[in-house]
Amino acid sequence: MSERGAGKTTIADVARHAGVSTATAGRVLGGYGYSSDAIRERVKESAAALGYRPNLLARSLITGRTRTIGVVAGDVQSPFYASVLRGISDVARLQGIGVVVTNSDERLEREIEAVQLLLEKQVDGLIVAPCDVLGSSHLRRTIESGCPVVQIDRIVKGLDADSVTVDNRSVSRECVADLLRLGHRRIGILAELERWEGGDVDRFMDRVEAGTVEAESLFPSWQRLLGYADAHRAAGVPVDRRLIARVGIYSAGAASAAAARLLSGPDRPTALFPADGLMAAAAMDAITALGLDVPDDLSLICFDDLDWMSFLKPGISAVAQPLTALGETAATLILDRIADGRERPEHRSLNATVAHRGSVAPAR
Amino acid sequence: MSERGAGKTTIADVARHAGVSTATAGRVLGGYGYSSDAIRERVKESAAALGYRPNLLARSLITGRTRTIGVVAGDVQSPFYASVLRGISDVARLQGIGVVVTNSDERLEREIEAVQLLLEKQVDGLIVAPCDVLGSSHLRRTIESGCPVVQIDRIVKGLDADSVTVDNRSVSRECVADLLRLGHRRIGILAELERWEGGDVDRFMDRVEAGTVEAESLFPSWQRLLGYADAHRAAGVPVDRRLIARVGIYSAGAASAAAARLLSGPDRPTALFPADGLMAAAAMDAITALGLDVPDDLSLICFDDLDWMSFLKPGISAVAQPLTALGETAATLILDRIADGRERPEHRSLNATVAHRGSVAPAR
Repeated sequence: MSERGAGKTTIADVARHAGVSTATAGRVLGGYGYSSDAIRERVKESAAALGYRPNLLARSLITGRTRTIGVVAGDVQSPFYASVLRGISDVARLQGIGVVVTNSDERLEREIEAVQLLLEKQVDGLIVAPCDVLGSSHLRRTIESGCPVVQIDRIVKGLDADSVTVDNRSVSRECVADLLRLGHRRIGILAELERWEGGDVDRFMDRVEAGTVEAESLFPSWQRLLGYADAHRAAGVPVDRRLIARVGIYSAGAASAAAARLLSGPDRPTALFPADGLMAAAAMDAITALGLDVPDDLSLICFDDLDWMSFLKPGISAVAQPLTALGETAATLILDRIADGRERPEHRSLNATVAHRGSVAPAR
Repeated sequence: MSERGAGKTTIADVARHAGVSTATAGRVLGGYGYSSDAIRERVKESAAALGYRPNLLARSLITGRTRTIGVVAGDVQSPFYASVLRGISDVARLQGIGVVVTNSDERLEREIEAVQLLLEKQVDGLIVAPCDVLGSSHLRRTIESGCPVVQIDRIVKGLDADSVTVDNRSVSRECVADLLRLGHRRIGILAELERWEGGDVDRFMDRVEAGTVEAESLFPSWQRLLGYADAHRAAGVPVDRRLIARVGIYSAGAASAAAARLLSGPDRPTALFPADGLMAAAAMDAITALGLDVPDDLSLICFDDLDWMSFLKPGISAVAQPLTALGETAATLILDRIADGRERPEHRSLNATVAHRGSVAPAR
């Protein structure tokens, strides 16, 4: 009766142990058809004694459900995706759903490959941070084939799928508006601004000023630049485009170089808004190297609240994204969507919060 | 012929499209039995045209393999597990293996639940950071039922399973030996020392001094304390046990309080070795609050190399664990173990490296 080395316990093993037919054991363990209380009891005791585990694979073939969801993250190693994944897995765990994780490294061909792998694993639904907000035909095909998709962090133009994003634009507007209220007139923004279908930053700002930017499917860093522009417009302060430090490649070196360039000019900004965690670290690098005092020489408020921001003196004010909540919401949406085919996609926008610390002061 | 709204393409659909029997299409797509080159070509073209995806579920029922592995992490949100997971998923991706992720929060009952979920998903193997290094009978049963296990970060006593760990003890000895060579005689260690079956820190140190500690199945923080003691013994410097700041609960608040206590006494240490990232942040907190200068008032070398350590001035010297390599090694071991049942468990120990920055100076 030992299970040692015997491989997986089968229904036949349970039946033999309980002294019933395999069909009877199958009925009891599958929870269908008739069997007496006494038999049911005996089969269940045998199942427990032998450590029988239901064959979810076989059940999946019948139900068409694997009770797993797939996640295509940019990079699970980054604090952003690590926290989102935590939120997703917490919700999934409570429902006994497995979470299969892949990385796209924000590269479209790798995302396509990851989606393909997850579809082959027959996940019941997908949570994706899409790399390409314009033409993601593989996601369209995924949905058409019956596998629902929830987009996180950004939205593919015209894709018929739920989404969960952060209110990047409005919280950025709020941060920059604060700086403007404190008298700052030269506010720098340091951001990865890599992909915009309409062209470069100049073209983007032209459209922003003309009010013709389509905001919906922008990547977060562009949304944040939009909020920066919104605040300036609301305050009647023109944007000096030389204060928009664009980091074309998402690398620490490129970001540090851009920060140093921005902060070492003769007419340097009196306040700085690094638009994500990497930019914030690069800004701190440049600030330390140039020997600038925060907030006396430079006010600083960053997007993304990282651990070190609270133990520097002064603490660095920062926008905290609700990352585990984002993951939890995405998981809830995909599980709802799997359970019933709601008609219209839902788009949820979550509020980020600002942690005010000592790095912002009135302009001198 | 459009797949729109039609759900998943079946072998029958492909057969109809190719004008062959379902059995023939099944043979070609399953890669078994005879079929002519021309037929094979036609079926494959139809499969591609219809976006046919092989039913891996059905195949899994035949092969007994799901081509997925399960991971029980402590918390994927922590930089440690996020990096390990990245390593695991990189290796898995190249072989088309899915990675199902769960968190134990370092709690045994949750680990047991997670293992159960993963076994129900019929993963082919498990990578686990075990919560309990003494009596993990659920892991023993998992292995006996035919599902191999690779342990990471720590080793369960007597468990017949591969492991990948970091050389916590020897790299800690190296760090503390450096401080001793520089003339430091009062070296503090700040560590989470929660679980040791033999009792408290005092009892542990008694055993260390008597040379009767069993080192193999210790949690990393205990291993690091052991390295700290090793270095003292090698240098002939007795350990002042009041310099061992034990943080009983893994919380930032408790760690900061312990660090403040250690550093504000009359006879405070001249050097400090925080034994993980949380302890390092707590140490920085206390150092900043007390206005101590690093390295003039206090030399500092930390376990775990975090981003902020390189952009503080002076930079903080730190031990970098090879975390993605740890994940890659664990994934390689489990895939090997799944592919063939090697007899003996393999125990791999990876070398951590020390990044020397400006936070260590000779004792004054």
